[in-house]
Amino acid sequence: MNLQEKITDYKNFPKKGIIFRDFGPVLRDPSTLSLIADEFERYFHPKDVDVFAGIESRGFVLATLLSARYDKGMILIRKADKLPGKTIKATYKTEYSQDVIEIQKDAIKKGQRVVICDDLLATGGTAKAAGKLVEKAGGIISGFAFIIELTELGGIKGISKYNCKSLVKY
Amino acid sequence: MNLQEKITDYKNFPKKGIIFRDFGPVLRDPSTLSLIADEFERYFHPKDVDVFAGIESRGFVLATLLSARYDKGMILIRKADKLPGKTIKATYKTEYSQDVIEIQKDAIKKGQRVVICDDLLATGGTAKAAGKLVEKAGGIISGFAFIIELTELGGIKGISKYNCKSLVKY
Repeated sequence: MNLQEKITDYKNFPKKGIIFRDFGPVLRDPSTLSLIADEFERYFHPKDVDVFAGIESRGFVLATLLSARYDKGMILIRKADKLPGKTIKATYKTEYSQDVIEIQKDAIKKGQRVVICDDLLATGGTAKAAGKLVEKAGGIISGFAFIIELTELGGIKGISKYNCKSLVKY
Repeated sequence: MNLQEKITDYKNFPKKGIIFRDFGPVLRDPSTLSLIADEFERYFHPKDVDVFAGIESRGFVLATLLSARYDKGMILIRKADKLPGKTIKATYKTEYSQDVIEIQKDAIKKGQRVVICDDLLATGGTAKAAGKLVEKAGGIISGFAFIIELTELGGIKGISKYNCKSLVKY
């Protein structure tokens, strides 16, 4: 089975000049959902992961999928002002705009090893900011997991000192 | 194990007078994550479900968790202008504001049985709108799954003709 065949391209979405790589059809099919978990399971050993952090909102899907497969917990990295209680914030640039993400201050136990999950690695701004949040919260980054990587945007550079795994590269 | 013990209350978030029921601590613990799947598995028979639809963004977590457990596909119900291609839209009122949700027109095959998932049932506006989207897209609603239900807001009324299951009621 080929994951890439299931990813649908939409030109000029959400902005002119952008090709949107839609993994909706991947999610609809249980066999491709399961394949995603299989692929990451080969890359990240269960002994090296305590928890999966999902970046809002499509990263929640991958983080939950892997949490279920590995029988580990999950953490939400959310957009500004969505999380209650004490939080840690980071600013980042995306392919489209400037934004803020947050994590709850008590989300991670000191020394917990975290795999940060998102659907897509583009410029890497979000991923890098998520990494800072996880480290500030006391976590150790075990790696980054992406379904899609847009290699021409070079987002991997900002997180290349970590274990990074993406399943489909453009 | 008691799910409710893991749900943390935050007063006056996101607005004054609101108690925010935070299921973050539930997600961090693999045993409670797994318990959630167990509870729904007792309620929705695998034969009655083809796909789980998650309402953005915390509903993605429950929909993915159940998709993984049932080995079924999942669908994203997203906020306005996030989904590429042809979509169906619905307007709804939340506890806090008025909003729009969308589903891709081709997300559901005609006659597929869908369980709609969200973290929380409050006034039920979002859930009802999600139900309309699923039916307009050709799906049959097999039920609604919520982790938390705020019973005093009576959201269940708008969807009471369907099978509804919430795990923790306030």
